[in-house]
Amino acid sequence: MNKTNRQIVLEKRPKGMPDEETFRFKEQDIRELKEGEVLLRTLYVSVDPYMRGRMQDAESYIEPFQLDKVIEGGSIGEVVESKSENLQQGDIVIGMFGWQTSYVAKEKEVRKIDPSLAPITTHLGILGMTGLTAYFGLLDIGKPKEGETVVVSGAAGAVGSVVGQIAKIKGARVVGIAGSEDKISFLKDELGFDEAVNYKTATNLKKEIGQACPNGVDVYFDNVGGEVSDAVLANLNRFARVPVCGAISAYNLESVDVGPRVQTTLIKKSALMQGFTVGNYSDRFQEGSMQLGKWLQEDKLKYQETIREGFENIPNAFLDLFKGNNTGKLLVKVADRQDEQ
Amino acid sequence: MNKTNRQIVLEKRPKGMPDEETFRFKEQDIRELKEGEVLLRTLYVSVDPYMRGRMQDAESYIEPFQLDKVIEGGSIGEVVESKSENLQQGDIVIGMFGWQTSYVAKEKEVRKIDPSLAPITTHLGILGMTGLTAYFGLLDIGKPKEGETVVVSGAAGAVGSVVGQIAKIKGARVVGIAGSEDKISFLKDELGFDEAVNYKTATNLKKEIGQACPNGVDVYFDNVGGEVSDAVLANLNRFARVPVCGAISAYNLESVDVGPRVQTTLIKKSALMQGFTVGNYSDRFQEGSMQLGKWLQEDKLKYQETIREGFENIPNAFLDLFKGNNTGKLLVKVADRQDEQ
Repeated sequence: MNKTNRQIVLEKRPKGMPDEETFRFKEQDIRELKEGEVLLRTLYVSVDPYMRGRMQDAESYIEPFQLDKVIEGGSIGEVVESKSENLQQGDIVIGMFGWQTSYVAKEKEVRKIDPSLAPITTHLGILGMTGLTAYFGLLDIGKPKEGETVVVSGAAGAVGSVVGQIAKIKGARVVGIAGSEDKISFLKDELGFDEAVNYKTATNLKKEIGQACPNGVDVYFDNVGGEVSDAVLANLNRFARVPVCGAISAYNLESVDVGPRVQTTLIKKSALMQGFTVGNYSDRFQEGSMQLGKWLQEDKLKYQETIREGFENIPNAFLDLFKGNNTGKLLVKVADRQDEQ
Repeated sequence: MNKTNRQIVLEKRPKGMPDEETFRFKEQDIRELKEGEVLLRTLYVSVDPYMRGRMQDAESYIEPFQLDKVIEGGSIGEVVESKSENLQQGDIVIGMFGWQTSYVAKEKEVRKIDPSLAPITTHLGILGMTGLTAYFGLLDIGKPKEGETVVVSGAAGAVGSVVGQIAKIKGARVVGIAGSEDKISFLKDELGFDEAVNYKTATNLKKEIGQACPNGVDVYFDNVGGEVSDAVLANLNRFARVPVCGAISAYNLESVDVGPRVQTTLIKKSALMQGFTVGNYSDRFQEGSMQLGKWLQEDKLKYQETIREGFENIPNAFLDLFKGNNTGKLLVKVADRQDEQ
């Protein structure tokens, strides 16, 4: 084991789109373990749109990243040394230790996962925060009923692709919005969406969404905000529900995000918009994970992962999230498991 | 009894602010009563901001007014002739017969009210749709808890003044937003609001609302939309609730109502916005009316009415709603009761 840890730290808070100057690679010595600690080698790190918010020094639901500190986020690691009674060498764990090649963790900071049940990467995706975000946002706020129409934006993304499939399980008609013909095919042919709309080629998105939803929109799971959402909101039915999960269109804006105000629509339709983050449901994660795992085993849920290779490629993978280059969950593989080496 | 009925009909759908050309006065003969019908003489008519929406030929929660037909709305009348077994001459009734001096009503179209319990006008205001709008919007959507901060815009208006008082009854700290110093005094001195902000004189409304709400905003009852609401939304607390009741700032706009998009705020704050109309709660009107009547009797609720005189002044009274000229409920008195004559 190399006794040096490599980290990617926040070098500069980005204005607008982050770039290479936002991040810096840094090395540090790995310290000796104390009682109850383990040394992890990072196997996979998750890159997620919400991380952009933490690069801002603004009040939000989660603390901003600190300058010169490692970018935190979901990661999977392997225990390579242990002074814990509960974790031993070779165990696979998940935690929030983020973009670094090694980490000295207190045993409480990580959770052991069972590699025999499902591929370990699914714990950063469909069985992890991504799947739980889709599960609680759709079911707790969206509450789709059988036969209703559910629209999801960012539909080919990590969260959106799960939202649409859960809505199908619940008997809804599902329409996805995505930005390439490959994604449109993926949604319809692979995931069983009833219809999909390419917002990049649409000449009149509001109208195209209307055509894809002849009975109107009962639930709109909003991952993107901006003009795409303006167009969906114009098609809402009476008593529609709009779980607001993400606004990726706005994350890198340098000016105020301006568009049609929603009040008149909400009144006319007696519609609901509710922002949320998955952390609001932490006391129900067990329920969600079990249900998602069950659907996965029953083959009712499919998942797609895009796995990039190499620690040094993490920043570029993150930046690709905002270019719409990935389908499904985007991960970076940092190292092989010991038994794979 | 004059056998001619005078009506105010929709002459032309307004673009932007309605004006005198929007309406036309029309006379018609009053027909003979059939079995089960009563002839009403109108005593009071209600003028309400939501009526502006019905002048538009656009899809909404309620049908548009028809051209050349009487403007419908809440009115109180006195039975002057009856072929109904359930209603007799002298009875006071409420119904949706709108802006006309007489009306032949089927007995089911109107509801008898008891003039001995409270002034009959309160049935168009605090004990009627106005009070029920405040009651259900605030309690069912806003759900204020003791010690929380409730902000209401249009606070000196018919609905807003009731919202603030119910919030006080529920133990909240209440901040009103209104557009004149007289209204500010009325809210603080007469209705017991904790604080009130004059949006017309504010140089930085967002900041002034922040100062009036040192613990942030937990509930925002939105009657106005527009820049006032933008400023309140910027002060929301985590898990805030925003009942969206009206958007008077937008009703007469000729262009799209544009402002900061709300998605990012809703996500950061896990906040809820829910549009509604009082009709959504029709199966609970009994509960609401009884509670409002009880609070009124216990002197926990005060109400303010502005009563204009004369049938011919109804259009101007309506237009005044958009000029912020009234405090509390705005009514027009059309005729005296028979025993007052």
